[in-house]
Amino acid sequence: MAAMRVTTIHGPRDIRLEERPSPTIEHSHQAVVKVVAGCICGSDLWPYRGENPIEPGSPIGHEMVGVVEEVGAEVKAFAPGDFVVAPFVHCDGTCPHCLAGMTSACVNQGMTAGGQGEYAVVHQADGSLVRTDGMPDPDLVPSLLTLSDVMATGWHAAVAAGVRPGSTAVVVGDGAVGLCGVIAAAQLGAEKVVVMSRHAPRQELARAFGATHVIAERGEEGEQQVRDLTDGVGADAVLECVGTGASMSTAFKIARPGSTVGFVGVPHGVELPLRRMFVKNVGLAGGMAPVRTYLPELLDLVLSGAIDPGRVFDLTLPLDEVAEGYRAMDERRAIKVLIEP
Amino acid sequence: MAAMRVTTIHGPRDIRLEERPSPTIEHSHQAVVKVVAGCICGSDLWPYRGENPIEPGSPIGHEMVGVVEEVGAEVKAFAPGDFVVAPFVHCDGTCPHCLAGMTSACVNQGMTAGGQGEYAVVHQADGSLVRTDGMPDPDLVPSLLTLSDVMATGWHAAVAAGVRPGSTAVVVGDGAVGLCGVIAAAQLGAEKVVVMSRHAPRQELARAFGATHVIAERGEEGEQQVRDLTDGVGADAVLECVGTGASMSTAFKIARPGSTVGFVGVPHGVELPLRRMFVKNVGLAGGMAPVRTYLPELLDLVLSGAIDPGRVFDLTLPLDEVAEGYRAMDERRAIKVLIEP
Repeated sequence: MAAMRVTTIHGPRDIRLEERPSPTIEHSHQAVVKVVAGCICGSDLWPYRGENPIEPGSPIGHEMVGVVEEVGAEVKAFAPGDFVVAPFVHCDGTCPHCLAGMTSACVNQGMTAGGQGEYAVVHQADGSLVRTDGMPDPDLVPSLLTLSDVMATGWHAAVAAGVRPGSTAVVVGDGAVGLCGVIAAAQLGAEKVVVMSRHAPRQELARAFGATHVIAERGEEGEQQVRDLTDGVGADAVLECVGTGASMSTAFKIARPGSTVGFVGVPHGVELPLRRMFVKNVGLAGGMAPVRTYLPELLDLVLSGAIDPGRVFDLTLPLDEVAEGYRAMDERRAIKVLIEP
Repeated sequence: MAAMRVTTIHGPRDIRLEERPSPTIEHSHQAVVKVVAGCICGSDLWPYRGENPIEPGSPIGHEMVGVVEEVGAEVKAFAPGDFVVAPFVHCDGTCPHCLAGMTSACVNQGMTAGGQGEYAVVHQADGSLVRTDGMPDPDLVPSLLTLSDVMATGWHAAVAAGVRPGSTAVVVGDGAVGLCGVIAAAQLGAEKVVVMSRHAPRQELARAFGATHVIAERGEEGEQQVRDLTDGVGADAVLECVGTGASMSTAFKIARPGSTVGFVGVPHGVELPLRRMFVKNVGLAGGMAPVRTYLPELLDLVLSGAIDPGRVFDLTLPLDEVAEGYRAMDERRAIKVLIEP
């Protein structure tokens, strides 16, 4: 495997499929994974749209499932041939942060790069990967792929927001993370799962995922609908799954006093309403999802058929059409694009 | 009681003791309380220093204990002669926010005004007040007075920060709230209670209240000391008891990934480090303390002698020297000033 194809970004809206040397084991804790399926993340659109700095020519793509190709000398728990889910943020599983469940802050943290390609490196294989028993049914691959980031991130939003059985949870954002947040809120027992969405196909998918209410209005009108729905009290838990100033503002306006906004969208241009947070005692929790922490539970839910987050992929493209995948997501023609190497 | 003396504020550093009509019952849920002891709050210094808007001539003071003088027709649980603690924020005890424990967001919220005076009104007497059995020992009055705000606020910081048994809690701020936060963190079982304080008398009081470590350095140097003390991990819980940009910045820098900064200082000039919060998963919770919610528990702790927060009062003045009380606190000659009408 001397050379491989991998997606790279060279500038805003400049996505290329290039030939690069295949990755090799450079540290003894690493594994090289042959990608079975990768995908495009909403956060990949930030550099794509020129809103984040770009190192021209850098590989892109941090979500993948695949088969272990090669492992470093100190990797004990995995061997070539294992089918694995690779969390986008790698962790050793042994540092104080990992032991406390905050695996995304591991002192040996690493990230998948080049997940939209043929091979990718996982830096802390033993601490990061989870394996399926044998090769999974191909129908399950999309859902397994979501565990690499998007489903775990939606789950983190729900956990951070403190969704409890019987509660009313509102999901701000109908992107793939928001839709996975709907799944999470429903699984965690919310009685009312409200999604704020004005796109019919996403509304439909949200309902399939467990949303009991859809609010199509935005801004003040949408916020009023949440208040009406909760007898003026506000939501027990709010999942902020966008990361913009407008979405964050809505999140805090609809959260009931004493509740928590769980945020997982990388914040861009956000100013927090600190005064309101103080007066209403609305907290903010969340951040970069500790994916590995949630993986065992989420893997069980997928394998048992309890959740089917793979349905967020409404477009599947071969690797050489990856640039079209970015265009489709950028133009909101697709919710999320699965890439097959 | 046609006339009474009450402290008023007319402008920055313009505190006056004036004669005003004694308050009367204007709504059936109110009670008039004859103040036994009031005090000056750190938050009173914001308008005093001209950093908050002032309505010239308005009564000031929101903390008090006293004896019920008169009650409205619908007040059932209290009668003239009852000794009561009056939480600074009044609540009906029956609205959805109160029932959820978030009494400071009561839909019938009110506040004590003129607590630095002879009489004050409590707007929702049944929902707000708590009574002692008979008149308390005068030695207990200062501690009972702290339950009106400062002790409950320090407690809220610890609860919001999620202080757990065996944890390391750091208190940022050695004002009266911070010192009460030390009491709270110790009571909630923190194994290490660290206070950031560079004033010897406050350090001493913090130790008496249960602080196991004192860090006198500020800024980067102080933050490094917290990291050293926690083997580089950071604090399990941080109580932010100041409300300035510098204190909030320190709070987020010393909080371990996945932890929560509990904030109770009215924020002034604070910009939250949202990027850091996201990457490190450090949350923010707290706000205006739901004092009434904590009162039964705190009252027990005071009456049993388990806590002695009244020691934060290091200066007691008669009402006609209230202006000197403000000066003493402004110049940090006093931690907190008790005012006796």
